[in-house]
Amino acid sequence: MGSLHAANLASMPPVELVHVSDEREEVARSLAATLGAACSTDPGEVVSDPRVDAIVIATPTSTHSALISAAASGGKHVFCEKPLGCTPREHRDAIAAANDAGVCLQVGFHRRFDPDWVAARERIAAGELGEVYLFHTTLREREPPSREYIESAGSFFADFTIHDLDIARWLVGEVSEISAFTAGLSDPLFRESDHPDQAIIVVRFACGALGTIDNSRTARYGYECSTEVVGSHATVRIGRNQQRHDVQWLSEAGVRVDHIREFAERYYIAYYSELEGFARAVLASEPVAVSGEDAFEAFRLATDAQRSLELRRPVTHAGIEMEAESVSRAGRCDSA
Amino acid sequence: MGSLHAANLASMPPVELVHVSDEREEVARSLAATLGAACSTDPGEVVSDPRVDAIVIATPTSTHSALISAAASGGKHVFCEKPLGCTPREHRDAIAAANDAGVCLQVGFHRRFDPDWVAARERIAAGELGEVYLFHTTLREREPPSREYIESAGSFFADFTIHDLDIARWLVGEVSEISAFTAGLSDPLFRESDHPDQAIIVVRFACGALGTIDNSRTARYGYECSTEVVGSHATVRIGRNQQRHDVQWLSEAGVRVDHIREFAERYYIAYYSELEGFARAVLASEPVAVSGEDAFEAFRLATDAQRSLELRRPVTHAGIEMEAESVSRAGRCDSA
Amino acid sequence: MGSLHAANLASMPPVELVHVSDEREEVARSLAATLGAACSTDPGEVVSDPRVDAIVIATPTSTHSALISAAASGGKHVFCEKPLGCTPREHRDAIAAANDAGVCLQVGFHRRFDPDWVAARERIAAGELGEVYLFHTTLREREPPSREYIESAGSFFADFTIHDLDIARWLVGEVSEISAFTAGLSDPLFRESDHPDQAIIVVRFACGALGTIDNSRTARYGYECSTEVVGSHATVRIGRNQQRHDVQWLSEAGVRVDHIREFAERYYIAYYSELEGFARAVLASEPVAVSGEDAFEAFRLATDAQRSLELRRPVTHAGIEMEAESVSRAGRCDSA
Amino acid sequence: MGSLHAANLASMPPVELVHVSDEREEVARSLAATLGAACSTDPGEVVSDPRVDAIVIATPTSTHSALISAAASGGKHVFCEKPLGCTPREHRDAIAAANDAGVCLQVGFHRRFDPDWVAARERIAAGELGEVYLFHTTLREREPPSREYIESAGSFFADFTIHDLDIARWLVGEVSEISAFTAGLSDPLFRESDHPDQAIIVVRFACGALGTIDNSRTARYGYECSTEVVGSHATVRIGRNQQRHDVQWLSEAGVRVDHIREFAERYYIAYYSELEGFARAVLASEPVAVSGEDAFEAFRLATDAQRSLELRRPVTHAGIEMEAESVSRAGRCDSA
Repeated sequence: MGSLHAANLASMPPVELVHVSDEREEVARSLAATLGAACSTDPGEVVSDPRVDAIVIATPTSTHSALISAAASGGKHVFCEKPLGCTPREHRDAIAAANDAGVCLQVGFHRRFDPDWVAARERIAAGELGEVYLFHTTLREREPPSREYIESAGSFFADFTIHDLDIARWLVGEVSEISAFTAGLSDPLFRESDHPDQAIIVVRFACGALGTIDNSRTARYGYECSTEVVGSHATVRIGRNQQRHDVQWLSEAGVRVDHIREFAERYYIAYYSELEGFARAVLASEPVAVSGEDAFEAFRLATDAQRSLELRRPVTHAGIEMEAESVSRAGRCDSA
Repeated sequence: MGSLHAANLASMPPVELVHVSDEREEVARSLAATLGAACSTDPGEVVSDPRVDAIVIATPTSTHSALISAAASGGKHVFCEKPLGCTPREHRDAIAAANDAGVCLQVGFHRRFDPDWVAARERIAAGELGEVYLFHTTLREREPPSREYIESAGSFFADFTIHDLDIARWLVGEVSEISAFTAGLSDPLFRESDHPDQAIIVVRFACGALGTIDNSRTARYGYECSTEVVGSHATVRIGRNQQRHDVQWLSEAGVRVDHIREFAERYYIAYYSELEGFARAVLASEPVAVSGEDAFEAFRLATDAQRSLELRRPVTHAGIEMEAESVSRAGRCDSA
Repeated sequence: MGSLHAANLASMPPVELVHVSDEREEVARSLAATLGAACSTDPGEVVSDPRVDAIVIATPTSTHSALISAAASGGKHVFCEKPLGCTPREHRDAIAAANDAGVCLQVGFHRRFDPDWVAARERIAAGELGEVYLFHTTLREREPPSREYIESAGSFFADFTIHDLDIARWLVGEVSEISAFTAGLSDPLFRESDHPDQAIIVVRFACGALGTIDNSRTARYGYECSTEVVGSHATVRIGRNQQRHDVQWLSEAGVRVDHIREFAERYYIAYYSELEGFARAVLASEPVAVSGEDAFEAFRLATDAQRSLELRRPVTHAGIEMEAESVSRAGRCDSA
Repeated sequence: MGSLHAANLASMPPVELVHVSDEREEVARSLAATLGAACSTDPGEVVSDPRVDAIVIATPTSTHSALISAAASGGKHVFCEKPLGCTPREHRDAIAAANDAGVCLQVGFHRRFDPDWVAARERIAAGELGEVYLFHTTLREREPPSREYIESAGSFFADFTIHDLDIARWLVGEVSEISAFTAGLSDPLFRESDHPDQAIIVVRFACGALGTIDNSRTARYGYECSTEVVGSHATVRIGRNQQRHDVQWLSEAGVRVDHIREFAERYYIAYYSELEGFARAVLASEPVAVSGEDAFEAFRLATDAQRSLELRRPVTHAGIEMEAESVSRAGRCDSA
C-alpha cells in the first residue's frame, strides 16, 4: 500500500515526492530510486526533513497513533491508513495531536473517493432516493491474507469491516445498534470468535433504517465491493458489475466475463483521488474529506460489533466508555 | 391466486378442471363459466364431487388446516398454498389427516419450481459450489398489501419470509439459529414489532454457514426475488436480472430496462410447473416435491424468527415445544 | 415445428385440436394419440374433415402454395409457415386463393409476437425513438442444419434471412435498396454463392435510414436473435441478454451465464402467441396480424438480396417483374 | 486533444514535458504555465529546442505530414494523431522522412491501447476464437462536431471510420474488399455523399471473413465504441457495457444506468497508455506499436470506402495507384 501511495504521489502534478521511509532498507532504497526521492529507514527523518509538508502513513496499525503524534508535533499534515490505532485511546491521542498542532489529518477510507460511490452519494443527497429503508454492503476478498497478518491485525471488524461501517455512516447516517455474526469455515486458522473468515453484521440506523454488512475472506471468484440502498422513491446499486474489462467471451459453455480479482484493480482511481483530495485540502487550508473523528466513529462501531459477538446480542451504540482502554479482546492488536 | 391456479389447471393437458368453489358466488360463477367447470360457494361440494381426484386450496390461511382435513377425509389429494395453518397444531393436524388418508399433500412453495432456482440447485447438488459459506436472499414487493390483508395474515415471517426460509433449507440445509430485525418505516400502519414493512433475518445453518434474508413491502422499483450462495469453489446468483422484457432503451438519460413489477410476471412458469408436478405425482402415485413436513419446518423457522424479535436475541431452532398452541403473538392469525 | 404447433394448439383454451396429418404414419399416429386427435397421412383428409375450421401448415416450403389453395377451396382458414412458396407465382397463387375464398391467411413470422419485439415496437410507435437513423439485426444458429435441409430449402435469404427482412419492414418501414454479401467458411458444404454459412445484408429504407442484417449458421455459442434501432431521440436494443436462466455462476474463471442454445428456448412464448392471435382473428372475423402480402414483400426482398449477390452490386426494390417465374437461381427450391 | 496529451505527459514518470506549442498564444501560455513547461506559437521552436527528444503532434490533419518531416529532420521522434495526411503522397512523405531520419513514428490509434481491446486481442491470438467468421464494430458520437470541423476534416471515412478500419486489420487481418453506404439524415449540413452522418461499411477480409462497420454522428444516448468477433470456437464482445459508473438506479420507471457520453470518458486509460508505450519504445529503441505503415493501410481503406461510395459497388483493395495524388474528392482535405 505504501508503494502504491508513493507511485501515485510521484505522478500527481501539485505534489513533489521528496522522501520515502521504510524500516526495510532495501524497500526504501529501491522505491526512492525509482521515484526520484530521498530515503531513510527511520520515520523520524521524514518528520525532521524540512522539505516535507505532509506525510502519508501506511505502516502497521499499532504504529499509527505514535507516528501521527510525531508528525503533528513536527508540524506536518498527515494522511493515515485506517484505523488510526488499536484502542479508543490511541484514536483519541492521534486526533488530539493533530488538533493541537493545527495540521490536517485525513484517514484512508478510499471508497469515499471512488467515482461510483461518489455518484451515488450525490444523487442520494439530491433526494432521488427519498427516505432510506434498507442498506446492504458486501466486502469480500478472494483469498485470505497470511496467518501473520491475521494474527497481528486486531479484530476482524476493526481491520476489515471498518470500511463498510464508514460507508454506512457516509451514505445513510449514524448507526444506533449493531449485531454481529461470524463463522470460521475455510481453514482451522479461522475461528468463529477471534479470527473469522465470514461475517454478517446487522445495523440499525438512527433514522430507523435497517442494514446488513457481509464480509468474506474466501470469495474465490474475486474481490467484491458492492452496496445497495433501498429508499422510499428509488433504490441505488453500486459496484454490481465488478468487471476488470468490458469484454464478454461467448462459447458453448455460456457467456463469460472477467471479474475483478484484487482490490487494487477496483480502486486504482480512488487511491489516487484520496491523495489528490488530501493535497488539495492541505494546499487550500480546507477541511479534509475524511476526518480523524470519522475514523474514530467507525472504530467505535467495529468495537461494538465485537462486543455484540461476545455477548451474543445486539449492542446499542454510544454505550462505550471511551476512557476504558480495552473493552474487549477486540481492543487489543499487535501494539499490546 | 385461485384464479391463476384455475386457469393453469384448465390449460394443463393431463388435468381436467371440473369444479370451482369460491364463497363469493359471482367469482365462482364467472370463473367456472370462463373455464368450463361446475361451481359452488361451499367447498364441501368440491369434496363430495365424485369426479374430483385432487383439490387446490388457495383460501385464507386460517381455513387451510380444516379444508385439508376435510379433503383428505374425502380421499382427495391436496395442493395447498403456504402456510398450512396459523399454529403448529394446525400444521400437525393437516399433515396427519393427509397421512392417515394416504393422499398426497403438496405445499405451494412455487420457487422450488422456477427454472432459475432449479438450475442453481442442480448445479449446487453436482458439487460446483463446494462447501457453502454465505447465503443471501431478497424478497421485496413494490407496494404493501391492504391493511385488511396485513392485519389478518398472521406474523410477517409466517406470511412473507416463509418462502425465503423454505428456499434456505432447500438450497443449503437445515437452519440451527435465527435472529430477526424489523422496522416499520413507510406508514403508521407498519410497526416494528407486529407488522413491519422491512425485515432482516440472520440464519446460521447446521453446516456452519451464515445467511441473511432481507424483506421489504415497499420496494418501489418493483418485485424482486433473488438469491446468492457463496461457496468454497464458486458462487451462484439467481434472479439478479429481474427483467420483464429483454429490451434496453438508451437515451440521453442513460440506459433503461423494465423491471419486473408484480410477482405474477416473475413466476408464471413456476406457478404452472408446481401444479404440473403435483398432477404428475398424483397420477404416478409418487411423493410430492414439497411435503407437509417442509411446510411445517419453514413455519417453525418463522415462529423462531418472531421469538427472536420479541426476545431481542438469537433463537436456537428445535427449542419450540410444538404441542404448545401459541408460543407467542405470532402464532395467532385470523383463525383465533 | 408441426409438433410444437400441435402441442400449443392442444393447450389453448379456445381451440380444439381435432386432426393431425403427417405423411409419416408413425409420426401422425403418435402425435394424435398424445394430444387426443384424429390422424391421417393425407392432408386432403384434414381439408375434408367437417369439424376443421382452420389449418396450420408446417410442411416443406415447396408444398405450401398448393396446400394453402386446397385449404382455402375447402373454406378453411390457414396459418402457414414462411415462406408461402418458392417463387413469386406460388406466393401470388396462395394469396389469391385465400382472398377468393374469403378465408384468413396468416404467416408464421413469430418474432412479431415475441413480447420483447412487441414492447419495442409499441414504444417506437409511441414516438420514443424519433426518426430512425440505423437498424441492425442479428440472427444466428449454433449449428448448421443437415445437408439435405440446406440443399432443398431454396435460397439462404428466402429460408433464413426472410425473418429479418420482415422484422426490418415491421419496425422501420419499407426497404428501397438491398446489397448482399456472403461467405462459405465452416465446411466445404457451404459456398459463397448458393449456400453460404455467413451473410451480411445492407438495406436502405424508403425513409432514408440504413440497416444491416447479419446471419450465421455457425455461432457456436448458441442461438441469437437481437435487434437494435438507433433513432434521433433514443435507441432501442432487443434481445441482447439471450439468456436461458437468470443465473450467474462466479468462480475463479470469471462470471458465467447460460446462453440460449436453440430457437425453441427463445421463442416458446411467441410460438404460442402467434397461434393464439390467429385463433382470435378467426373467431372474431378480424384481419390477421401477418398477412400473405407481408410474406410476399419479405420474399421479394429475399429475391432482391440474391440478385444483389449475383450482380455484385446494390439492387433497387420494385425492380422485380413478379410474373417472371424465376428471376434467378434463388427463385427455385425443391418444388422445381 | 493536445491538452489531454500534454497533461498525460506531465504526469508520466519517465517523461519530462519541456515545451508546449500552439498557434493560439493564449492556449500555449496557459497550458505551459499549468504544466510547468516552456511555450511557443511556432512549432519550429519545438523542433529546434535541444531539450526535446520526441514530439507529440495533435494539429489539424493538413499540417501533419510537413510537421512530421520537420521533426524527423531535426532528429526528433514523433507521435502523431491519425491520419498522417490528406493524401497518399502526404502519408508516403511522412513515413519516408521518419525512416530516413531513423526516428520512431507512432500513430494515435489509441484503441489498440485500451485494456478491453488488448485483452480481447491477446485471447484471439491465443486461439480461443478459432477461425474468424464475422466481425462487427460500432463507433458513434452523441452530437456531431461543428460545421467548420466537418467541412475541413476531409472524407468521413479518413476522419472517422479510420479507427475502425485499423481495428479491423489489427484484430482480424488484411481487408480485401470494401463497400460503403452512407446517409445524411439529421440536418441539412449532412449529405449522403460528402459529409454523411450515418455510415455502414462492409468489409471482406483476405481470410474470407465478412465484417461490418457502423458509424453515427448522432447517437443521442452517448458515445459508443464496441466490437464483436464471431469465430468457429467462440465469440468475443468488447465494449458492450459502455458505462461511466458502476451504479444502477432503480425506480418505478425501471432500471437506469449512466452511459458514456464523450470519448474522453471511455478512453482516458488508452490515451495515457499510448503515450507511455511511445515513451517506452523511444527509450528502449524498440519498434513502436502502431507504425506509419499501419496509418497508411487504414488510410488506403478509407480511400477505397470513398471510391465504393462514388462507384456504388464493392471496391477491391490494392487497386489504388498510390502515386496518383487524389483519386477522388475524398483525397482532398483542407490542405488543398
